[in-house]
Amino acid sequence: MLGGGGGVIRCKAAVAWGGGETLVIEEVELSLPQAMEIRIKVVSTSLCRSDLNAWLSHQIFPRIFGHEASGIVESVGEGVTEFEEGDHVLTLFTGECKKCRHCVSGKSNICQVLGLERQGVMHSDKQTRFSINGKPIYHYCAVSSFSEYTVVNSGCAVKITPTAPLEKICLLSCGVAAGLGAAWKVANISKGSTVVVFGLGTVGLSVAQGAKLRGASRIIGVDTNSEKSEKAKAFGVTDFLNPNDHDQPIQQVINQLTDGGADYAFECVGDTGIVTTALQSCCSGWGLTVTLGVPKEKPEIGAHYGLLLSGRTLTGSLFGGWKPKSDLPSLVDMYLNKEIKIDEYITHNLKFDDINKAFEMMRQGKCLRCVIHMPN
Amino acid sequence: MLGGGGGVIRCKAAVAWGGGETLVIEEVELSLPQAMEIRIKVVSTSLCRSDLNAWLSHQIFPRIFGHEASGIVESVGEGVTEFEEGDHVLTLFTGECKKCRHCVSGKSNICQVLGLERQGVMHSDKQTRFSINGKPIYHYCAVSSFSEYTVVNSGCAVKITPTAPLEKICLLSCGVAAGLGAAWKVANISKGSTVVVFGLGTVGLSVAQGAKLRGASRIIGVDTNSEKSEKAKAFGVTDFLNPNDHDQPIQQVINQLTDGGADYAFECVGDTGIVTTALQSCCSGWGLTVTLGVPKEKPEIGAHYGLLLSGRTLTGSLFGGWKPKSDLPSLVDMYLNKEIKIDEYITHNLKFDDINKAFEMMRQGKCLRCVIHMPN
Repeated sequence: MLGGGGGVIRCKAAVAWGGGETLVIEEVELSLPQAMEIRIKVVSTSLCRSDLNAWLSHQIFPRIFGHEASGIVESVGEGVTEFEEGDHVLTLFTGECKKCRHCVSGKSNICQVLGLERQGVMHSDKQTRFSINGKPIYHYCAVSSFSEYTVVNSGCAVKITPTAPLEKICLLSCGVAAGLGAAWKVANISKGSTVVVFGLGTVGLSVAQGAKLRGASRIIGVDTNSEKSEKAKAFGVTDFLNPNDHDQPIQQVINQLTDGGADYAFECVGDTGIVTTALQSCCSGWGLTVTLGVPKEKPEIGAHYGLLLSGRTLTGSLFGGWKPKSDLPSLVDMYLNKEIKIDEYITHNLKFDDINKAFEMMRQGKCLRCVIHMPN
Repeated sequence: MLGGGGGVIRCKAAVAWGGGETLVIEEVELSLPQAMEIRIKVVSTSLCRSDLNAWLSHQIFPRIFGHEASGIVESVGEGVTEFEEGDHVLTLFTGECKKCRHCVSGKSNICQVLGLERQGVMHSDKQTRFSINGKPIYHYCAVSSFSEYTVVNSGCAVKITPTAPLEKICLLSCGVAAGLGAAWKVANISKGSTVVVFGLGTVGLSVAQGAKLRGASRIIGVDTNSEKSEKAKAFGVTDFLNPNDHDQPIQQVINQLTDGGADYAFECVGDTGIVTTALQSCCSGWGLTVTLGVPKEKPEIGAHYGLLLSGRTLTGSLFGGWKPKSDLPSLVDMYLNKEIKIDEYITHNLKFDDINKAFEMMRQGKCLRCVIHMPN
C-alpha cells in the first residue's frame, strides 16, 4: 500500500480487463470508505467458481473479482459503529442490513437492501471505489477481494474473533458455509436419511459434510470426474457415482440404490438439466431437491408436473440460507471447536502474484479451494 | 338393482363408450367384492374436472367415471373387518393401505400400494369388476361412482358417521378436501399472510376458504371468467383479478398489489404455464408455490433458476396432503360443527338420468359442483 491524497489508498489489485483475459496486477486507487462503509486490508481470499464464471462472461469490465475473503478493518466511514480499525472480518457477498422486511423475518436471508449486487458498483451510490487514473474499475459481488485493500458496505462484512486463523476461515465467506447451510438450514437433513449430491466441488462436499454431521445413513456423490472419489469419502460420501460409468440414466441408478429415490438431492454443479435429474432422483412423498448452482447457460429448469404432484419439493439455496452477519460467527466457533472441517478443502496456497494459476487450476478442475495470500 | 347369480349385482351405470361421447345409462354386471374389497351402494356423487378431462381423453374405454362419492356398504369381501353392511362411507380415489413406507411415515399421503390407479382396473388383480355380457367395463381412479353400485378396495373408502348428510359430504371425497389440505397441510398458511389462487373452481375456492380460516390478510383470486368474482368473495377472496382485464402480465399486477409478491401461490387450473406464473407471483425469501392441477397438455413446468435461488419453493399437492382414511373423518366433523363450508359449492343437484347435463355444464364452466343423486 502506498498512501494517497485525501485518504485514498494506492494498492495492488488483480484487474480483469476483459472476459477470460489473464488478470493483471495493477496499482489501483481505492477511495475512502463512504458513510456506512468500511475499508478492509485483505489477508486471504479464495477463488470460487462464481468468480471464474463471471470472469469468463462478457459483462462489466474492467473488474476486480474475489468474494470469499478474510481481512482486517483499516478504516471506517461515517456512521459506522459496528466496526473499528483492527477488527478481523469475513466479507459477505450478500449482505444483511438487519432492517428490511426480509432481514427482520426469520424466514429469509435475501436482504432487500444489500442483496446480491450484480452491477459491479457499491449499493449506496452505484459508483465504484476503485479506479486507475480516474477510470472506474468495477467491483464484484460488492466485495472485490482480489486486491490488497477493498471497500465494502458495513452490512457486507462480519466481525469475527481474532483467534480464528484468517488464512483458513476465508472459506466460510462463501463455499463451505453455502454447502453446510443448504444441508442444515434449507434442507434440514434428518438422521438416517439418504442424500444425493450432484457436483463434488467445495460446495457439494460441504453439503456432504453437513449431511454426515446430521447422521445421514447414505450420501451418494455424483461427479463426472472420478478423481474426486477419494476426497469425497473423506467428507462423508458413502457411494461415488460417475454418470459416465453407467449405461442407465444416473437417476435410475440412484432410484435403484435408494429403493425409490433419495430423501434429499442437491444440485451443486450449476446446470439446470441436473436440477431436473436431481428431482428425478428424489423419492415421491417427501423428496426434497435443493438447487445451489448458478447455471452458465439455459437458465430455465424443467420439471414434469407429476414429480411435484407426487410429493416432491424443489427449492433454492443462496448462501445456505444463512443470514450472513447473524449466523457466520457461530460457524467460525464450530471450526475453532473442531466441529466442522475447513482445512481439508484447501488444496493449494498461492501468493497474490500467482493468482492466475488459481483460475487455471479451477478451470481444469484440478483444485478444490486455492487460497490466495496477500502480501503483508 | 337386480340380483344376479353368484352374488353378482346387475345395476345401472353411466358408461362412457368413447372419449367425449355422451354417457349411456346401461345395465352392467358387478361382481362380488374380492378379498379386502367392499361393494358400495352409491348415494351421491359429484362431477370433478378430472372426470371430465379423462372422459375427453382417448384412453381406456369403455369406462365408468366418478370418483367423488358417498355411499353405504352393501357387502364386504373376505378378510374385511373394518367395514360391515350398512356403514356409511366416502370413496377415496387415492387409497391408504396403512402398511407401506409412505403410509407409516408422517410425511406422505402417496400410498405405494393403493396410490392413484390409472389403468382402469382394481389394484389387487388388475381386473375389472364391471362387465356387460362378459365384456369388461373399466374403472376410473379405483372408484367408478357413476353407477348405482361399485366395488372398491377397502383401503379406498373411509367409514364416516351416519349423522353426516351423504348428499353433501361427497364433496369431501375429492375437490373440497384437496383445496383445504393444500392450504392447511401442504402450505401451512400462516395468519396475516398474502395468498394468490389461480383458478376459482371448487378446488381453488377451497384453497381460498382454507386461507381465510387460517387468517390470511389478503386472498387474491385469479380467473379468466369474471362471473366467478361474486362467488369467490363468499369463500374469502378479497381481490378478484381477471388477467384479460390487465395490460401487464398478471404476475406483475400481483407483485405490485403485494409489494413484491404473495407469501403463497396455488395453481388450481391444470396448466403448467400458470405454475410458472404462480412462482413469479410469489415473493423472494419464502414464497411458496403449490401446484394442484393436472395439466391436459405440456406436462413440463418451466422455472427460471433465479426464482428458486432467491428463496422460492415449488411443491405439489395431491389430495391436499391428507392421508385419506386417517384424515377425512375430521373434515366431516368440521362440516357437522359448521367450521367449514360445503353446501355452497353445490350449484346443481341432478338425477342420475341427467348425468350428461353435469358434463356439459362443467365443460362450459357453468357450475362448481353438480351433485348426482342415485335412485333409491
